Amino acid sequence: MSGRTARRRVLRVTLPGDGRPGDSTPRADVLAAEEPLGIRVDGTALTMTMRTPGDDIELAAGFLVSEAVVRSPADIAEIKLCDGTSCGHGDHHGMGNIADVTLAQGVTVTPGARRNFLTTSACGICGKTSIEDICVRPHAPLAADTARFAPDMLAALPDRLRDAQRVFSRTGGLHAAGVFSADGELIVIREDVGRHNAVDKVVGWALLNGRLPLAGCVLLVSGRASFELVQKAVLAGIPLLAAVSAPSSLAVDLAEQAGLTLVGFLRGPSMNVYTGAHRLPA
Amino acid sequence: MSGRTARRRVLRVTLPGDGRPGDSTPRADVLAAEEPLGIRVDGTALTMTMRTPGDDIELAAGFLVSEAVVRSPADIAEIKLCDGTSCGHGDHHGMGNIADVTLAQGVTVTPGARRNFLTTSACGICGKTSIEDICVRPHAPLAADTARFAPDMLAALPDRLRDAQRVFSRTGGLHAAGVFSADGELIVIREDVGRHNAVDKVVGWALLNGRLPLAGCVLLVSGRASFELVQKAVLAGIPLLAAVSAPSSLAVDLAEQAGLTLVGFLRGPSMNVYTGAHRLPA
Repeated sequence: MSGRTARRRVLRVTLPGDGRPGDSTPRADVLAAEEPLGIRVDGTALTMTMRTPGDDIELAAGFLVSEAVVRSPADIAEIKLCDGTSCGHGDHHGMGNIADVTLAQGVTVTPGARRNFLTTSACGICGKTSIEDICVRPHAPLAADTARFAPDMLAALPDRLRDAQRVFSRTGGLHAAGVFSADGELIVIREDVGRHNAVDKVVGWALLNGRLPLAGCVLLVSGRASFELVQKAVLAGIPLLAAVSAPSSLAVDLAEQAGLTLVGFLRGPSMNVYTGAHRLPA
Repeated sequence: MSGRTARRRVLRVTLPGDGRPGDSTPRADVLAAEEPLGIRVDGTALTMTMRTPGDDIELAAGFLVSEAVVRSPADIAEIKLCDGTSCGHGDHHGMGNIADVTLAQGVTVTPGARRNFLTTSACGICGKTSIEDICVRPHAPLAADTARFAPDMLAALPDRLRDAQRVFSRTGGLHAAGVFSADGELIVIREDVGRHNAVDKVVGWALLNGRLPLAGCVLLVSGRASFELVQKAVLAGIPLLAAVSAPSSLAVDLAEQAGLTLVGFLRGPSMNVYTGAHRLPA
């Protein structure tokens, strides 16, 4: 497996701003590593994602939760990382770039129309159909989650997430996802070049540690809230998704229908509550 | 077709910061619209992307350029948006959410291993293999593009991109991609909830207007530079990709091998030049 960061040479150009030529200084830069991870289930290649290496078993597990393939640790017999030679996938240079998942007996990826997964299904193409698909999948209806979240607790979370980001400060290139308790205590944080991967990694951690559904918890993401991230929160049983930036229209629509509390623009002393405002006591 | 923005009700919570309860004000908020677009080629569903509606024909065309399926307008016989009823794809609620592409005679999507496309191929899983695949595809080797780009011209581009963003200022939720001439003149800009879609839209615009390859041009993206965005720039024949934020390790590796100039952290009077620094005269 490769590292989470990689060093590359860079020419740093700084302009004086008065029309004179700029100053160019060669130096080494630390970048977020990005490499493909293939996910195979029971011998069949299911998907490939461009991710930051590390926590790959959690990433594969979380992906399968987000796609409604598994919902408990018992649904997975084994996940192993494969170097591409020992597992017969040819002569690959990237060690550990395939996650080989063996599902428990009786657990299957629904064949046919579902083979492209909820997020990329070319049938059920309109948003409404996708929303209906997703809302029937959670462990328990999110509406039944009676947790309450104080606005001042939520307002403190972005700083806690940033403090806990080990890689971001070095590279500037990683998204973070963190799960917090209703008291604002950090439970788990993961980083990745892809927001969806960071969320899959925390959800996979929760699955493998018997913490699903994540009832009563907050999921905080460092960027925007897309439809896909709301889907992942709903399928992990998380009642509140907070984002530092804006949600999309379809993210709000899915959150509303699934009973998820969706908070956006969580910055400084203010936030926008798009759905499920009853979970934030005044 | 739906609009690019959508209005939703929101509760704006503002905390005084001294421990007293916050103020909650209901109001209407304008969000970036996000809806699925299915892309079908010669009757077969190829992919689905979550995008901001608008410029969908360009998006489909640009996607096919980025996946090395087409490289000239003559490769496409027709692209039509389909409302899901007239084209026999069932009872869909989202009008115009399928782009139906008919390729010109003799142009095909390579079957078999390539069916998941360059970016999501589960074979060729390691980065090195993918890079080799991509480098043989451009119209002409990027290394032959002798354009030069003045650092002070580049430094002015982020402000020009932002000024040209019509939707961002209203929603805060859209990524932008802009193509500029070597003199810094804006040629085309597109926005989307997904960075990759914004780039596909500008590339599709260029294809449909006979502007490919985009020799001598700059592609500026509002966020990070991933492997996928470098791939799109390379296949569109663009010699310089600039990003406001960080590149990933694999983005730098592909840029290096393809002969692309990659600029990151283009902010204010400074920038990092990761590859192809010879195109920036001192």
